[in-house]
Amino acid sequence: MRRFVIGQAKNLIDQTRRQHHHHHKNLRLLSLLPPFSAASDSIPVSSSRLLSSSSEMSASDSSSSLPVTLDSINPKVLKCEYAVRGEIVNIAQRLQEELKTNKDAYPFDEIIYCNIGNPQSLGQQPITFFREVLALCSHTALLDESATHGLFSADSIERAWKILDQIPGKATGAYSHSQGIKGLRDAIAAGIEARDGFPADPNDIFMTDGASPGVHMMMQLLISSEKDGILCPIPQYPLYSASIALHGGSLVPYYLDEASGWGLEISELKKQLEDARSKGITVRALAVINPGNPTGQVLAEENQRDIVDFCKQEGLVILADEVYQENVYVPDKKFHSFKKVARSMGYGEKDISLVSFQSISKGYYGECGKRGGYMEVTGFTSDVREQIYKVASVNLCSNISGQILASLVMSPPKPGDDSYDSYIAEKEGILSSLAKRAKTLEEALNKLEGVTCNRAEGAMYLFPCIKLPQKAIAAAEAAKTVPDAFYCKRLLNATGIVVVPGSGFRQVPGTWHFRCTILPQEDKIPAIVNRLTEFHKSFMDEYRD
Amino acid sequence: MRRFVIGQAKNLIDQTRRQHHHHHKNLRLLSLLPPFSAASDSIPVSSSRLLSSSSEMSASDSSSSLPVTLDSINPKVLKCEYAVRGEIVNIAQRLQEELKTNKDAYPFDEIIYCNIGNPQSLGQQPITFFREVLALCSHTALLDESATHGLFSADSIERAWKILDQIPGKATGAYSHSQGIKGLRDAIAAGIEARDGFPADPNDIFMTDGASPGVHMMMQLLISSEKDGILCPIPQYPLYSASIALHGGSLVPYYLDEASGWGLEISELKKQLEDARSKGITVRALAVINPGNPTGQVLAEENQRDIVDFCKQEGLVILADEVYQENVYVPDKKFHSFKKVARSMGYGEKDISLVSFQSISKGYYGECGKRGGYMEVTGFTSDVREQIYKVASVNLCSNISGQILASLVMSPPKPGDDSYDSYIAEKEGILSSLAKRAKTLEEALNKLEGVTCNRAEGAMYLFPCIKLPQKAIAAAEAAKTVPDAFYCKRLLNATGIVVVPGSGFRQVPGTWHFRCTILPQEDKIPAIVNRLTEFHKSFMDEYRD
Repeated sequence: MRRFVIGQAKNLIDQTRRQHHHHHKNLRLLSLLPPFSAASDSIPVSSSRLLSSSSEMSASDSSSSLPVTLDSINPKVLKCEYAVRGEIVNIAQRLQEELKTNKDAYPFDEIIYCNIGNPQSLGQQPITFFREVLALCSHTALLDESATHGLFSADSIERAWKILDQIPGKATGAYSHSQGIKGLRDAIAAGIEARDGFPADPNDIFMTDGASPGVHMMMQLLISSEKDGILCPIPQYPLYSASIALHGGSLVPYYLDEASGWGLEISELKKQLEDARSKGITVRALAVINPGNPTGQVLAEENQRDIVDFCKQEGLVILADEVYQENVYVPDKKFHSFKKVARSMGYGEKDISLVSFQSISKGYYGECGKRGGYMEVTGFTSDVREQIYKVASVNLCSNISGQILASLVMSPPKPGDDSYDSYIAEKEGILSSLAKRAKTLEEALNKLEGVTCNRAEGAMYLFPCIKLPQKAIAAAEAAKTVPDAFYCKRLLNATGIVVVPGSGFRQVPGTWHFRCTILPQEDKIPAIVNRLTEFHKSFMDEYRD
Repeated sequence: MRRFVIGQAKNLIDQTRRQHHHHHKNLRLLSLLPPFSAASDSIPVSSSRLLSSSSEMSASDSSSSLPVTLDSINPKVLKCEYAVRGEIVNIAQRLQEELKTNKDAYPFDEIIYCNIGNPQSLGQQPITFFREVLALCSHTALLDESATHGLFSADSIERAWKILDQIPGKATGAYSHSQGIKGLRDAIAAGIEARDGFPADPNDIFMTDGASPGVHMMMQLLISSEKDGILCPIPQYPLYSASIALHGGSLVPYYLDEASGWGLEISELKKQLEDARSKGITVRALAVINPGNPTGQVLAEENQRDIVDFCKQEGLVILADEVYQENVYVPDKKFHSFKKVARSMGYGEKDISLVSFQSISKGYYGECGKRGGYMEVTGFTSDVREQIYKVASVNLCSNISGQILASLVMSPPKPGDDSYDSYIAEKEGILSSLAKRAKTLEEALNKLEGVTCNRAEGAMYLFPCIKLPQKAIAAAEAAKTVPDAFYCKRLLNATGIVVVPGSGFRQVPGTWHFRCTILPQEDKIPAIVNRLTEFHKSFMDEYRD
């Protein structure tokens, strides 16, 4: 609850203040509030339900003689927020439990999770070839059985052997090199070269359990104190604000221009950089998410060149979140990696510091649960790279199944391979369906009163802007809730649809949004559109000024 | 190289100073050294070989216009050390490469990695049942094939179905609940109850990618600044010193008593706690590793009760590293979890804060590469638990294969199950062989001049004490190397055996040790003993005073 109070206040502050430092002060004031003070008025959800064993023991339980209290823990942890799995998801989980025991408890019979990019949780099937190779590498005895040839494609068996030959002692249960199995990094480097047309070095690849640990590793390296700033897009995927908060740095916001389809203006970067410097903040890096999350735009190559030049001139590391590189849905846009762009401009290893993050969780593969990914680290001196290697070593290595999948997504079946046709059919089927769903939802959203929604050029999300009536804003404030969170909770309670309030990603003060994934299966989309449309109409009827 | 210089100096300081604060000062002095100052005299190994692409670009490359330098990165990262994958392993990897091209380059034909608890890398086979279930969950289409019944045990198929039924939509490729799949946590809680005879709550389980991320999460929660201290055993597994350094806290050492078989004396805990408090350090938690790493002792229940009472009285969280709970080799010792001990003393959820860490990397399963584990979090208020949940959520979830394996090791086949007999045979085979290897190596070490070695009651390591002649210590200092690292490098270059210097784990100043795993396969042990014995004799002949 306490987190929720702080979260609320912080979000409200976000709406009225751009500056990072103010949060801090306000948080300190808040920590003087008695626990649960405001929370009792708010939605009755907390981890005491998620973590039932502790429900018997409330924070205000005076009999408790436990040493750890909210006031004694690391304030950086208190400050960290992650709305994608925040309060509204907790409400959704409670509703889901209630529906199990009483299917008539709500005007809907299922919860539809549009809060998170988790394709397989909504019915997307994994790519068969990938899973065949994974199974063979999980239980290698299968490779000695003749019956296996009837159950697996020829190239999956071939690939499994190739991978096992790259693992010392064929030991898929052993810790690997701290950066990941060399042979798999070779395959990834080859995939990057094929994608970009510029060389990639397997020794630049650090394999990670999804993209998030890589982002944390770089934040840990670059941030020494709140005097170190990271330029982040607003709106942003909250991993960035969370990681910067946990490492005690300053998030230096640059606002994407919604009017120009979430354009990234260099003038805005300059303005915010100077503003941060005038506050004594040393800006260390620029985080850029392309295709955008939550905004779904795909950067034009032209724009990327300007960004590279800006970072070169200002001495900023480029942290390029490129996990949606396979998720582009419009014919007029194409994904270009920042490394390709930088190299094509003639910038080499000694000119620009660039980290590219990739994940197996996104794309057409959507293997979120396998936690695989990598970062390609270029343009760092050997002694700094040694520090990155050391930090990677403390955690030994990323999981081998994830490593194997990361190598597979960067080196999928080729024409002529036994699996090629089915692989292409599965891939195209998923991507074309995602494009269709994006279009349908985008059009439906744009039909709603006071709602405007940029097109999803890529990624897995729509981020519509809602003009909320004053009456609704007043009702939200009365309920001690941020207006867009108020809207999203009402939407959930009326329809079972889970979306994330724009305040969870930050947004231009005074504007309100929500993030909705395009991931529900096609047959569910019409119902979602109807429920959303109906709800919105009744919400507006209730609050229209 | 720079890290190596700092590492060296820090180790040397460790030998002469106990106090944490001094490191700090000395490190600051060190950071004024020009890069490579001393390193050029030292072993020519650095990540520039591991990371060849950067070898073209040295740290002192003045032409480099790159923004990130050792002086501008987070000093906590510089301070962090992890010898288990440190310099000596880098040398070993270089020797291994050289042997590939020239098998006569050294007086040995292979590198034997005794530096890390990585059983499958040395030929230990995985437990068949675990891998069968994993393969079926990796490629669920197999479950619909009749041929599968010829390839898999009946109970592995049954278990795979049971696990899939516990995963929403049977989606093994989806992110799970931030704490891990509920059904798998149920299985783990049941396993803990069966082990301890006291109830366990699935909502107390946080599944993690190995034990390390759980330790980091707790350090992040408990450490706000260098004024926060964590009591750690010395010698210790360097994950603890590394994690405390990365989070900016103070390691408060308590020294295990080598003379009494690495005994843990409450008087020592009291003394160090008071010493830390007198320096203005607030000690937040006590880390205890049982069975011990690197020391291999198994705590007596009596001793554990005293530790629990001490932590209760002093208001310390118990961080119980219990990843070696299945690795006990002597009839007179038995593993008791700290939770069982605390509960048997009548301490409940409201009396004591306890986190138990478990991993699938150790035990008889040794599934290091799968990166699975969990922490059982008890005795925290709901609002603090909510913060732990939030931090877990930022990283979404641990990998599902690791989650599945963690549930399997806590609920293996039972009598009557199709796999039971083979499972028991595999398990007993591994554990009895580990016990034999431990005994053989322990006896061999104790035969060496000036070497004394406590028995490995548990875990996977021996940690012998070497009385190094003054001449050897002088030679080490001349080579700007810590004496035990000097010994270990000589051992590696003469025999190909890789062990970790005691200084990597910290030790009583003026004493010298190394950590050697008991993991090489039985058929290799005689050769290892011979090479070790021969080398030690010649080393002593060279340096005997």
